[in-house]
Amino acid sequence: MVAPLRIGLAGVGTVGAAVMRLIESQRALLKARTGRGIEVVAVCARKARKKRDVDISRVRFLADPLALATDRGIDVFVELMGGEGDPARAAVAAALAAGRPVVTANKALIARHGTALAATAETNGVALNFEAAVGGAIPIVKTLREGMAGSSYARVYGILNGTCNYILTRMQEEGLSFADCLKDAQRLGYAEANPAFDVDGHDTAQKLAILASIAFGTRVNPDAVYVEGISSIAPQDLDAAAQLGYRIKLLGVAVRTAKGIEQRVHPTMVPRESAIAQVMGVTNAVTIDAEGIERITLVGPGAGGAATAAAVVADIGDIARGLRVAPFGRPTAKLAASRKAPMQRHEGGYYIRLAAVDRPGTFAAIARHLAAQGISLESIVQHRAGERAHGGEDPRSPAAPAPVILITYATTEDAVRRALQAIQRQGVVAGRPQLIRIERD
Amino acid sequence: MVAPLRIGLAGVGTVGAAVMRLIESQRALLKARTGRGIEVVAVCARKARKKRDVDISRVRFLADPLALATDRGIDVFVELMGGEGDPARAAVAAALAAGRPVVTANKALIARHGTALAATAETNGVALNFEAAVGGAIPIVKTLREGMAGSSYARVYGILNGTCNYILTRMQEEGLSFADCLKDAQRLGYAEANPAFDVDGHDTAQKLAILASIAFGTRVNPDAVYVEGISSIAPQDLDAAAQLGYRIKLLGVAVRTAKGIEQRVHPTMVPRESAIAQVMGVTNAVTIDAEGIERITLVGPGAGGAATAAAVVADIGDIARGLRVAPFGRPTAKLAASRKAPMQRHEGGYYIRLAAVDRPGTFAAIARHLAAQGISLESIVQHRAGERAHGGEDPRSPAAPAPVILITYATTEDAVRRALQAIQRQGVVAGRPQLIRIERD
Repeated sequence: MVAPLRIGLAGVGTVGAAVMRLIESQRALLKARTGRGIEVVAVCARKARKKRDVDISRVRFLADPLALATDRGIDVFVELMGGEGDPARAAVAAALAAGRPVVTANKALIARHGTALAATAETNGVALNFEAAVGGAIPIVKTLREGMAGSSYARVYGILNGTCNYILTRMQEEGLSFADCLKDAQRLGYAEANPAFDVDGHDTAQKLAILASIAFGTRVNPDAVYVEGISSIAPQDLDAAAQLGYRIKLLGVAVRTAKGIEQRVHPTMVPRESAIAQVMGVTNAVTIDAEGIERITLVGPGAGGAATAAAVVADIGDIARGLRVAPFGRPTAKLAASRKAPMQRHEGGYYIRLAAVDRPGTFAAIARHLAAQGISLESIVQHRAGERAHGGEDPRSPAAPAPVILITYATTEDAVRRALQAIQRQGVVAGRPQLIRIERD
Repeated sequence: MVAPLRIGLAGVGTVGAAVMRLIESQRALLKARTGRGIEVVAVCARKARKKRDVDISRVRFLADPLALATDRGIDVFVELMGGEGDPARAAVAAALAAGRPVVTANKALIARHGTALAATAETNGVALNFEAAVGGAIPIVKTLREGMAGSSYARVYGILNGTCNYILTRMQEEGLSFADCLKDAQRLGYAEANPAFDVDGHDTAQKLAILASIAFGTRVNPDAVYVEGISSIAPQDLDAAAQLGYRIKLLGVAVRTAKGIEQRVHPTMVPRESAIAQVMGVTNAVTIDAEGIERITLVGPGAGGAATAAAVVADIGDIARGLRVAPFGRPTAKLAASRKAPMQRHEGGYYIRLAAVDRPGTFAAIARHLAAQGISLESIVQHRAGERAHGGEDPRSPAAPAPVILITYATTEDAVRRALQAIQRQGVVAGRPQLIRIERD
């Protein structure tokens, strides 16, 4: 008879309460599956007494996370307080240093201090599991870390932020503006009062940095991620994308290129038929391209108490079974430095939306500057009232001013930026050009 | 320095050769990820000398799989011979009994003898891994077995046979008949010369039985699966499905019902917007519904040398890391018997296509017999030349004979069968009614 695995839980908010309920309600199942009983024996929270979805009166209460982390009465420390700094960081580090395995859902902590914490885990021969930090209930960390151990990853990309995908879905389906959809998302609780962390892409960047580290064996570093949010996306971009056979998603993309590992977060045009394009609302999805395996896509709930708790409990289950895998899939000493790949050197197709000034020669000037940078066009769409030119080269009779949409063949970001600067300098376009990168299947 | 893990490989066909190449080409990566070198040291095949995609001259060759399975020079036995009986079965059993972990891609073996082999593995404290047996490179076994350890599964369903999905995709996209698509699939190597095992649903049933066992803790039993293939599907069914917002897929579905675990394989109408409906061609996909987690879907290549080899090598990697999980996710003694749920008691919506005889009162008779069984209709579609009645109740002026398509609300299979028998007895329909079950998200 193996003694039950004793859990110390720091943080009893929505996720913490869901974890406690799941462990309680699945007691028999967990024991059957992991061979060992699992019990929450102590918790730590800011307030001992507070209205909660779960009864914590039957477990020990500690006010100090650090004391819980090093408590001799627990076997596993589960960190659900959040925040990249202390007390989460200090508590996790202390637990690992004391030889206690750690499970955390804290993406900021892992993105910022993951490599150092992994090294501590390694030194002390204990697990550091963080499935819930990326993609909620989607087992993406396990899949990258264990499920494809013999595969060289070429690219990992996905929808990692439900708020952004919810907003883009509403914009696409209802033709609403970004601002209106954001307001709705806030009202429905899908977006924070301060939405910048989500809509500016930083949440996605932290999650991507974690996935990139596992996939490519680099030290996790969110500062190596190029980040662009979705606030500049207009309904007309979504319309144009649809007409051209694409959808616009905020993607996190980590890809091996000849110049190193590129990590980037930005609004992205994806082919409408791709699995990732089908993902609507708050759902998350990750696609893995590996050598010899064209594509594996995992789709599921990326947030929410129950989904996050499921991932946390699965991580606890692995510890109950005695599984221990290097946190980032290989020893920290073997992780390479993670450098920010310069976006000027990014290669791919581009969507460009210009407000062309209505006078003869405008289009010729645009075409000339693109050609000067060696940029070839796959499609040209020019809308006028009730009319649409598609694939034409140079409409000789410009009517009312209207946006011009261009889809380029693969080129470099540098070339596109230079061409657009030249076009803007010539005064043939009004306002700032819109630029959206295209990610092919 | 840990000694390398020595692999004995039985079967050097497409998959076996791909496994050897992958282990060779990913030598450094595998060592970094698993902490241990992995080497194929001995192989067994029907012929020692044969044109192969891989050089086997540098490893020991044994003619007898049983001798390889128990060879003292190997640490892991990898079975890629196929076939549910001997020599595969005897060799796997012998390896396990000799305390050697086993990796196999053999779905028939695991579906037929999985529980007995798992018991042998358990007794001898070794791993029996079979990720490659279901869904090719999709890590579905790992996800069900480890990735959601605390989750109660409600339903697991998926597209598990690429041949069938390829045929249905071509039929849908090009309006071709089943027979024509099958011929094409055979020409392109997507279907066997004898396609019955695939198109009649038996391949899907074996895979489903394995997933059901892990998800629901039952002893694996393909005979407990209700099986129907795709040969009766006509282009007009695919057209009607599209008009009604569905697609038709051959699904394997395992679901917990009040009456027990239902395991069934049949052509299925799935909502067009569902993740599973988007899966085209030879691609496989599995959706998991768990308590608290609405839905996780995994999509990827279900077959092919490279994809299957990736799963085999990941399984070997787990053994190199020292991971060992009960083959079906819990001890064999805890697995419940797997009984065939009677399909008469299946509850769900139905698509019914009838060739209604062209005379007054036909529709009234059909409606009456459905009503007598308590069946409510969600949609009625009746095609005439250039015209379509949708949602009407009883078109009073029947024109040229034409199919009538009915979509029922949830009812029981028993009720539907009784109603159709009564309708047929009354002579108001010609030929055999087409019946396709609907699977809701």
